Amino acid sequence: MTTTNQTIYWTLTDEAPSLATCSLLPIVRTFTKAAGIDVKISDISLAGRVLSAFPEKLTEEQKAEDGLSFLGALTQDPHANIIKLPNISASIPQLKACIAELQAEGCDIPNYPEAPQTEEDKAIQARYSKILGSAVNPVLREGNSDRRAPGAVKAYARKFPHSMGEWSKASRTHADYMRDGDFFSSEQSITMDQAGDVRLEFVDQAGNVEVKKELSLEQGEILDSMRMSCRALREFFEETMQDAKETGVMWSLHVKATMMKVSHPIVFGHAVTVFYKELFEKYGDLFEELGVNPNNGIGSVYDKISSLPTSKREEIEEAIHECLEHRPEMAMVDSVKGITNLHVPSDVIVDASMPAMIRNGGKMWGPDGKPKDTKAVMPESTYARIYQEMINFCKTNGAFDPTTMGTVPNVGLMAKKAEEYGSHDKTFEMMADGIMRVVTADGTVLMQHDVEKGDIWRACQTKDEPVRDWVKLAVTRARQSGMPAVFWLDHKRAHDRELIKKVNTYLQDHDTDGLDISIKTYNQAIRFSMDRMIRGNDTISVTGNVLRDYLTDLFPIMELGTSAKMLSVVPMLKGGGMYETGAGGSAPKHVQQVEEENHLRWDSLGEFLALAVSLEEMGIKENNKRASILAKTLDAATGKLLENNKSPSRKTGELDNRGSHFYLGMYWAQEVATQTEDPELAAHFAPLAKTLSDNEAQIVAELSAVQGKPAELGGYYHANRENVKKVMRPSETLNAALAALS
Amino acid sequence: MTTTNQTIYWTLTDEAPSLATCSLLPIVRTFTKAAGIDVKISDISLAGRVLSAFPEKLTEEQKAEDGLSFLGALTQDPHANIIKLPNISASIPQLKACIAELQAEGCDIPNYPEAPQTEEDKAIQARYSKILGSAVNPVLREGNSDRRAPGAVKAYARKFPHSMGEWSKASRTHADYMRDGDFFSSEQSITMDQAGDVRLEFVDQAGNVEVKKELSLEQGEILDSMRMSCRALREFFEETMQDAKETGVMWSLHVKATMMKVSHPIVFGHAVTVFYKELFEKYGDLFEELGVNPNNGIGSVYDKISSLPTSKREEIEEAIHECLEHRPEMAMVDSVKGITNLHVPSDVIVDASMPAMIRNGGKMWGPDGKPKDTKAVMPESTYARIYQEMINFCKTNGAFDPTTMGTVPNVGLMAKKAEEYGSHDKTFEMMADGIMRVVTADGTVLMQHDVEKGDIWRACQTKDEPVRDWVKLAVTRARQSGMPAVFWLDHKRAHDRELIKKVNTYLQDHDTDGLDISIKTYNQAIRFSMDRMIRGNDTISVTGNVLRDYLTDLFPIMELGTSAKMLSVVPMLKGGGMYETGAGGSAPKHVQQVEEENHLRWDSLGEFLALAVSLEEMGIKENNKRASILAKTLDAATGKLLENNKSPSRKTGELDNRGSHFYLGMYWAQEVATQTEDPELAAHFAPLAKTLSDNEAQIVAELSAVQGKPAELGGYYHANRENVKKVMRPSETLNAALAALS
Repeated sequence: MTTTNQTIYWTLTDEAPSLATCSLLPIVRTFTKAAGIDVKISDISLAGRVLSAFPEKLTEEQKAEDGLSFLGALTQDPHANIIKLPNISASIPQLKACIAELQAEGCDIPNYPEAPQTEEDKAIQARYSKILGSAVNPVLREGNSDRRAPGAVKAYARKFPHSMGEWSKASRTHADYMRDGDFFSSEQSITMDQAGDVRLEFVDQAGNVEVKKELSLEQGEILDSMRMSCRALREFFEETMQDAKETGVMWSLHVKATMMKVSHPIVFGHAVTVFYKELFEKYGDLFEELGVNPNNGIGSVYDKISSLPTSKREEIEEAIHECLEHRPEMAMVDSVKGITNLHVPSDVIVDASMPAMIRNGGKMWGPDGKPKDTKAVMPESTYARIYQEMINFCKTNGAFDPTTMGTVPNVGLMAKKAEEYGSHDKTFEMMADGIMRVVTADGTVLMQHDVEKGDIWRACQTKDEPVRDWVKLAVTRARQSGMPAVFWLDHKRAHDRELIKKVNTYLQDHDTDGLDISIKTYNQAIRFSMDRMIRGNDTISVTGNVLRDYLTDLFPIMELGTSAKMLSVVPMLKGGGMYETGAGGSAPKHVQQVEEENHLRWDSLGEFLALAVSLEEMGIKENNKRASILAKTLDAATGKLLENNKSPSRKTGELDNRGSHFYLGMYWAQEVATQTEDPELAAHFAPLAKTLSDNEAQIVAELSAVQGKPAELGGYYHANRENVKKVMRPSETLNAALAALS
Repeated sequence: MTTTNQTIYWTLTDEAPSLATCSLLPIVRTFTKAAGIDVKISDISLAGRVLSAFPEKLTEEQKAEDGLSFLGALTQDPHANIIKLPNISASIPQLKACIAELQAEGCDIPNYPEAPQTEEDKAIQARYSKILGSAVNPVLREGNSDRRAPGAVKAYARKFPHSMGEWSKASRTHADYMRDGDFFSSEQSITMDQAGDVRLEFVDQAGNVEVKKELSLEQGEILDSMRMSCRALREFFEETMQDAKETGVMWSLHVKATMMKVSHPIVFGHAVTVFYKELFEKYGDLFEELGVNPNNGIGSVYDKISSLPTSKREEIEEAIHECLEHRPEMAMVDSVKGITNLHVPSDVIVDASMPAMIRNGGKMWGPDGKPKDTKAVMPESTYARIYQEMINFCKTNGAFDPTTMGTVPNVGLMAKKAEEYGSHDKTFEMMADGIMRVVTADGTVLMQHDVEKGDIWRACQTKDEPVRDWVKLAVTRARQSGMPAVFWLDHKRAHDRELIKKVNTYLQDHDTDGLDISIKTYNQAIRFSMDRMIRGNDTISVTGNVLRDYLTDLFPIMELGTSAKMLSVVPMLKGGGMYETGAGGSAPKHVQQVEEENHLRWDSLGEFLALAVSLEEMGIKENNKRASILAKTLDAATGKLLENNKSPSRKTGELDNRGSHFYLGMYWAQEVATQTEDPELAAHFAPLAKTLSDNEAQIVAELSAVQGKPAELGGYYHANRENVKKVMRPSETLNAALAALS
């Protein structure tokens, strides 16, 4: 491993974040250099990953280092210090566009074979498949998760509160979920006494056994199995639709088909075929012929029938509209374009859509573009009930008040694909009635479920080491923050009962004296946290992997109006640290605005926050005093930036990402220059502080002068670095000031 | 005191219960005699109390013993064993009717002087005032309260569940209460280090001091003071009315003007004058002239304007209707008669109306006679929030299911007029702005509130001895039942903080090993209890005086459909016991049905249950084995009676109260005859069991033969005992069978 202990690895990703890096990094390096810290770029962009997959096809110049593999190995190094910016989780269309762009550049890489026939094509597809989807996080997230709203961000939200919709006490909005037949109600769970292999087997009614999967489990590993009844699910959907129709509320679906990429598209598909029951009854055969896949949404129908003769297409479109007459109004993703909740599965992501609705006074947008009360349908009850608890709370107490509310940071079990989030390769849709069972090598049946055709069965793994580390992280955070820490674990749930045993055991490894650490059911936990929150008190949520994901959207969206401003630290199992910036992902329209008007609205706040913690850790771990000073001063500078509202504006002509970077640099230099802990360092930065302050107007003018005209980046997925540098660093005055110090 | 240790005192009360006693007692005595127990009548009827107040006016024959004074003294006897049937809490019209009836009988008692001028009249009024209202309970309830659903009753409800309205998840119904300015938010509380006198003083803005009341407090006594802001109250009412209008739900008011007889009529009056704001603005002067008192409801307006000329009256009636146009629909007490929620304060008793609404799927009756969602307005937030918690719970989980739900018995702090229920003489409506304060004899200010004209200020006392006894009772009940016991105490409330200290201290006096005793806020407590309840688990609620009252309606109405079937034991501070029967009170229409059709639908189940516990206690305390056997066999007989549906029918011609008594006697005799613990006793009752069984058809026929014709009771308040006996014991076969054993 080629890393010195004084190196920060900064990921080069895609789209807006990668553009921003070009402007920010020179400023960052000006500071870190003074502390003897090297900030190295590691390319994990989509284009970079594609190129590094086909070295044999490329010239030496075209070749790219495999940044992801490098960082993956680095996660095992106790000195690892990685700043991870948002990257593209590539869909197939995105991958194809990237390939085309690289080919146009002259790279001799193969096309993506959608339906590979030859062995060669299969091999190519296999290489590409490692690049598709959420391919980066599983490699890098070699630890649990510590997410919190940094003090400066919280202070900003208190001073400049985001809008919150009013909650009516008479609101009809509610969450609806299955009471039986879902994963929750069928969950079984065991902990392995010793390491061993198990088989996941299907036994059909004739007694034939089919091995679906073999697993090697570690000692102390928890294995869950559970089943969602197809019949119960479809009945539930039908009931919710009828109830919404009768009571006059909108119907909306909230699943997580992107992340739960095997189970939830099936659930989504059932919603589509139940909602449009008559349609699928009438045209089922035709749809099959056409290749309609309801798991891809009703959009799939529109897509596939577009090839039909007009008269036939119109007939089907009419049938679609007839279905709507017996159905409740549906919540819209985009009422202007007529995109409903059931058009595309990736549009209704529960952890984003539910907080948005709650923040909006419990309303979603109706087909007429008006906000309306809704029945929020989340079939699986396991986590859905927390939303109903919050809805009840808001009906009773009104909307949350960002100016006074406390904060709920999260310590999340994430490492090694814990729980449902690692279940994809162990999730099966049943093709026949029978039994699904988990069997040891010697034939002992550990768990089993009766299943019916169409049921979804899955197994989830949770390794012991991550749990142990998660408990430790919870204790550490409780100690550091002085907040009560609540483990969200439900003794009525099989999996959680196993976890509770571990938590109680591993808590004994730590000094918890004077700490307020408790275990509560999800409902108790969220209620406890909310009761404290509205009184301005803070409470750490210590949760499993799914709740980690849900809560780190839910609470930040109430507290800060966005989850993008959260600090996301991954203290890795081997001792290193990864600092994630901005949960928001990258937005294509940001790049578009740069190309058209040379204005980048991307907010690098996440980078500022992550860098501060990265430096703080560097200071502690490597005993680098100057790193600690840089961390403290950077936090102060970020606070000033927020306070003075120097974040990027969305409007071309106003301060953008580049201007915001300048202000961060100026404030940071001022903070370092005026700190007294290290006079030498202060003296070193005094000239920069002065130059930047003196030239503030000039620099801002230079940065805004370039705006309003198109900018040439020379590529989308693989922009030309020289072009980008020219676009992102247009202020000669700023560049010169930074150069003067180096 | 003239009491042997083997005596049960059975109260003779009014109306239906007193008629029922005439039929039941001969049966009861047949059994108790065999155990050497005397059952003595003690007359606490309204007529009896009136007669005993004027002995000097009456002939020897007319004179009545002062049963209430006798029983009051008896409460101090550790051997006291009292069965208390429902009696009339006389309003002035009822008292006057009773006086007239007695006068017509020839009793020379004076009229009730409504506006006494002479000293003599004042003296008469003073004597009558002791008879008015809730005069009996404060004398007899010399202990805390232990209320529970007896096993037989719970089993009956599970087998024959009462109807429950469905709860829609989209229901708009909610509880609304003040968030500030109410008693809860202003409450202060102290515990007396030592006994001492305090003054409740009003200080006006010029500094003049008016002593409103002087109190002698005991050592360890808790004194609370609190204020409800008139301004905040009226603003709250206005907001709730506007909000209900806007959101399209009905508006309903829920107070407790009967019990909280000083503070709540004022609160009710504000609701009236805010709802009919324009009316009172326009006709305020005229109304004052006419003597309209809004605290008596809008009914008071209708009442007082009836004397006006038709044109004026119609003008005002039109103005009333105009008010309604700007106001939400109001929940109706009687939509057929047009009686709204604001007509009469005694019609909207929160502890009855809220459970009825919740049982009815959150709906109340609208002006059009249809059930509708409603905003249930309960200004004081202290206890109101439990209803919102239950409403949220029902929206989330659906209506409670009587066939599977657990039970929530209550241990209530009741003795010595604890808390708000003893506050009437310490409650004041402020006539000017200033300060209300509690001052010790030496001038130290213990508590004070800034007050404005119109505010309601009150002080509440809670003596130490009852608290200590209440804690003991809670531990005893937890031990006896094996249920978790939850003290409903809110650490955010000043009064409860004082109580929590005492509870924690006094719990140490008891062996609580193996018991599950906890302290929870009201919301936590009700949620905890409900979460257990829907899973079939039982939880003791240990509460203060008001919650005692509220919960012993709320849970029984969900569990049993009525609170009348609850067993209500008052283990008295001095060691005796009082057993209350049927919380339902007496109903005039029951007597009317007897007079017109000779059918008494009164259900004596409460008496059966109370008698069983009375006998059980007698068995334990006086070491009377036969009493214990009678208790057990009576419980079994009651279970059989419920099981076989031998409770009185409402329909004339079917089994009525008398027939139900016969069946109880028969089952009881059968149970005693077949028990093996006391063969001699079994043998003694075998003939009766046989006679009654053999003659079942004959007796039932005799009892139903008399029905359908008018019955002459010879009085309403003071019926003729001979007449009553003739009416209530018409079966010669039954009478002969009972006589044969004696």
